[in-house]
Amino acid sequence: MLESAEIGHKISKQMYTRKEPPLRKALLNEQFDLSQTRRGPVLIILSGVHAGGRGETANKLTEWMDPRHIRVVAFGPRTPEEAQRPPAWRYWRALPPKGKLGIFLNAWYNEAMSEATRGRGKIDDDRLHSHVQAIREHEQMLSDEGTLLLKFWIHLSKAEQKERLNALEDDPRTRWRVTRADWEAYRIYNKSHALWEHLLRETSTGEAPWYVVEGADERYRNLTVGKILLDAMRSIAKVPSATGKAPLKHAVAPTPPSVLDNVKLIRDLDLSKKLPSEDYKRQLEKYQGKLARLSRHKRFAHHSLVLVFEGSDAAGKGGAIRRVTGALDARQYITVPVAEPTEEERAQPYLWRFWRYVPPLGGIVIFDRSWYGRVLVERVERYCTVDEWMRSYNEINQFEEQLTAGDAIVVKFWLQISKAEQLRRFRAREHTAFKRFKITAEDWRNRKKWNQYEVAVCDMVDRTSTEIVPWTLVEAEDKSYARIKILRTIVLRLERALKP
Amino acid sequence: MLESAEIGHKISKQMYTRKEPPLRKALLNEQFDLSQTRRGPVLIILSGVHAGGRGETANKLTEWMDPRHIRVVAFGPRTPEEAQRPPAWRYWRALPPKGKLGIFLNAWYNEAMSEATRGRGKIDDDRLHSHVQAIREHEQMLSDEGTLLLKFWIHLSKAEQKERLNALEDDPRTRWRVTRADWEAYRIYNKSHALWEHLLRETSTGEAPWYVVEGADERYRNLTVGKILLDAMRSIAKVPSATGKAPLKHAVAPTPPSVLDNVKLIRDLDLSKKLPSEDYKRQLEKYQGKLARLSRHKRFAHHSLVLVFEGSDAAGKGGAIRRVTGALDARQYITVPVAEPTEEERAQPYLWRFWRYVPPLGGIVIFDRSWYGRVLVERVERYCTVDEWMRSYNEINQFEEQLTAGDAIVVKFWLQISKAEQLRRFRAREHTAFKRFKITAEDWRNRKKWNQYEVAVCDMVDRTSTEIVPWTLVEAEDKSYARIKILRTIVLRLERALKP
Repeated sequence: MLESAEIGHKISKQMYTRKEPPLRKALLNEQFDLSQTRRGPVLIILSGVHAGGRGETANKLTEWMDPRHIRVVAFGPRTPEEAQRPPAWRYWRALPPKGKLGIFLNAWYNEAMSEATRGRGKIDDDRLHSHVQAIREHEQMLSDEGTLLLKFWIHLSKAEQKERLNALEDDPRTRWRVTRADWEAYRIYNKSHALWEHLLRETSTGEAPWYVVEGADERYRNLTVGKILLDAMRSIAKVPSATGKAPLKHAVAPTPPSVLDNVKLIRDLDLSKKLPSEDYKRQLEKYQGKLARLSRHKRFAHHSLVLVFEGSDAAGKGGAIRRVTGALDARQYITVPVAEPTEEERAQPYLWRFWRYVPPLGGIVIFDRSWYGRVLVERVERYCTVDEWMRSYNEINQFEEQLTAGDAIVVKFWLQISKAEQLRRFRAREHTAFKRFKITAEDWRNRKKWNQYEVAVCDMVDRTSTEIVPWTLVEAEDKSYARIKILRTIVLRLERALKP
Repeated sequence: MLESAEIGHKISKQMYTRKEPPLRKALLNEQFDLSQTRRGPVLIILSGVHAGGRGETANKLTEWMDPRHIRVVAFGPRTPEEAQRPPAWRYWRALPPKGKLGIFLNAWYNEAMSEATRGRGKIDDDRLHSHVQAIREHEQMLSDEGTLLLKFWIHLSKAEQKERLNALEDDPRTRWRVTRADWEAYRIYNKSHALWEHLLRETSTGEAPWYVVEGADERYRNLTVGKILLDAMRSIAKVPSATGKAPLKHAVAPTPPSVLDNVKLIRDLDLSKKLPSEDYKRQLEKYQGKLARLSRHKRFAHHSLVLVFEGSDAAGKGGAIRRVTGALDARQYITVPVAEPTEEERAQPYLWRFWRYVPPLGGIVIFDRSWYGRVLVERVERYCTVDEWMRSYNEINQFEEQLTAGDAIVVKFWLQISKAEQLRRFRAREHTAFKRFKITAEDWRNRKKWNQYEVAVCDMVDRTSTEIVPWTLVEAEDKSYARIKILRTIVLRLERALKP
């Protein structure tokens, strides 16, 4: 979930100067509405890495809005008064009432993180689950009772964290802010990374999703947080006013970050990557050979392989899949093309149609499109509600976690081409008799929504690229390059899993 | 949660013969409606103790309804085919589609129970939490996707289990059904009891509450399960039909058991218990003395005490509380009379007004009425929605668990008097000048809803009497008896907690 916040998001001063005033004004308006209608409350949790800028973000939000109606609470070590009560007491005490905003720095996540690593320094999964369960119940209750909960993870890559700490230390005005704890946090950055991923994934729910925001560029960080907050406040303002005592329900789930350069993850791919034809042939032979041997290896009998292919229309999924199956024993694999659900499938929970095809140990299943349809086509085309696709990120992560726990090796590919290349391929298909069936009116319609798909893809990668099952983004402009990258990735993942 | 299913519920043959035919007809009608509207599906989970009659219940339900639209699946040890996939695979496979009913015997609860005790025989709390979290996510997803989930725990007391096993063995026709595993389960009954309590409490949610049904009397068991199923199916039939692809949402939560002798727990209290006046004085002195010493004991500084008084109107809560506070240091305790929430409290989540009063270590707080108002007066008077009071059982258990984890000793009393005694006390209040303020028109209104309150009280005790914080039911017809029972209970709980 963190990778798209480690790629150096930046906003120019010029753009910031243009965007900030209207955002500020809009936030103030929403805040005023909130206090008049006594909806909410809105509770913002700012957590994240050391020196990421949590405090500065809180300051900026109170500067933008009316500070009389915002309460910022930083939770550090428990005070003697707090230590006399259950840990949750201080969080209850600090809750903002309806009509107000609260900003909690860290809150209950700090405890989960410090306790999960207590002892031997490695994550105790079961203990972490205890915390996760308590957090989910608490947040569920807050949401049921009408609180709009917005959780921001302010993130930095390891290099960015070092840079920030150094910069703070070099400046005499900020030197005092860097403590030993900050450098200690930097030292164990890599170890903590897995814990963050885990915790964020398991506590990102439909009601209370995490928004991971890169903290290195102050302008980007503030505008992004502000924009998400604005969208969320607008979404609850749309809900019909609660009358009487019944608490406000969010008919509208908070929208995901429709932020300024949110699609960077995809747009930054270097689509000029190419593989000359002689290299391609050689490598194809090499990796297909390896794949053939690995899939017939005796230790593969203790695993299964689940391959997921997603990508832009005409990105070359079919061709890539054929290069994979070319190395496999036909009795060992099935390919599942995913289109409209059947009548039988529609009568079941969404994931049922994929559970059907979960392979036995020693088996391979290749999904040509997959469960990610929920957060791609179904989201963009509004075949399902916001609530449905928002909660499905968590359901999908849970599903893939179960597959992995059942010794499946799950490899997910997103194949990306440029808009221009797509046009070329569409046209080519129309002019080639035997390919004409591959291009339909729907493809042209989808193409019109290119930008919406980009946002959906970035959200998807953000929310479902986990430490267990990461996404592999494939630069697919050159088919040869894409096919080899895919084969190589599968081979590497198999080699790692089958290592004795 | 189990105690009200260990008190020997029974239904006469005559009553059964009268109740069964209309129930059966109504169930068939609802089943037909379900299949026509393609709502649901309805998934019934039958779990519980060995020899409780899970299988017989499943058989009875299929006998009553149209078996072509019910699928019964008993989950035993995993088959070789199942063992090749993640554990959840077989549950997904067996899911009933919309419009149908499914009956799962045990399902995912068996795994949680066997794994939580794996190893050293004692419950591994963190491991259990891992399972609980997975179960809650799975059931949440099923509910979000439109499944009506009904979970029945078919229960027997230890004595009843022994009796049932013996009876089955004595009958040559059923002897084969009793296995070594059954007797082994009987042998570890006491140890398992705590695990059952724990698991039921933590997986009883607003969407998917457990219904604990005593299994000893076949007629009681079948009618109770049938009645709850009928109520639940009727409640979803009321939800406006889902059009298009959107899944059915339960606007109406399944109602709790409005079963035949559900109020037995309360009605069975022996209200003739009395304490002669000379005994009362002696014991009052004795227990007040003990309470005074215990509350000033140096080890009490590591605990706090939370006392909860609930009861029928005029049951004598005030008098009992004064006998308790008579033994305490006035600087050490506060009494919180709970009435209408204030404006400030209404702007917060429900439990906020009680969290305010959580005492520090060494402190005592006495609630004269409490958070249980949600599931008593607010339920009966419909001040909150079904959904709200249904989920609050779980929130309350979670709250009390947090108090206990923070070293609070929580003692809860329900004071019960008879309807006739209440009338006498109401009249006496009206005729005594200085007591007249204690009787209002509201008291007379509440009295008219006596039966509804009885049902609510029984539900409350069932769902919130946990192994950590049990309810103490107090026969309050005789004030002296009640006061001593209360004092003695507090003293015993304190002695146990302060034992070095």
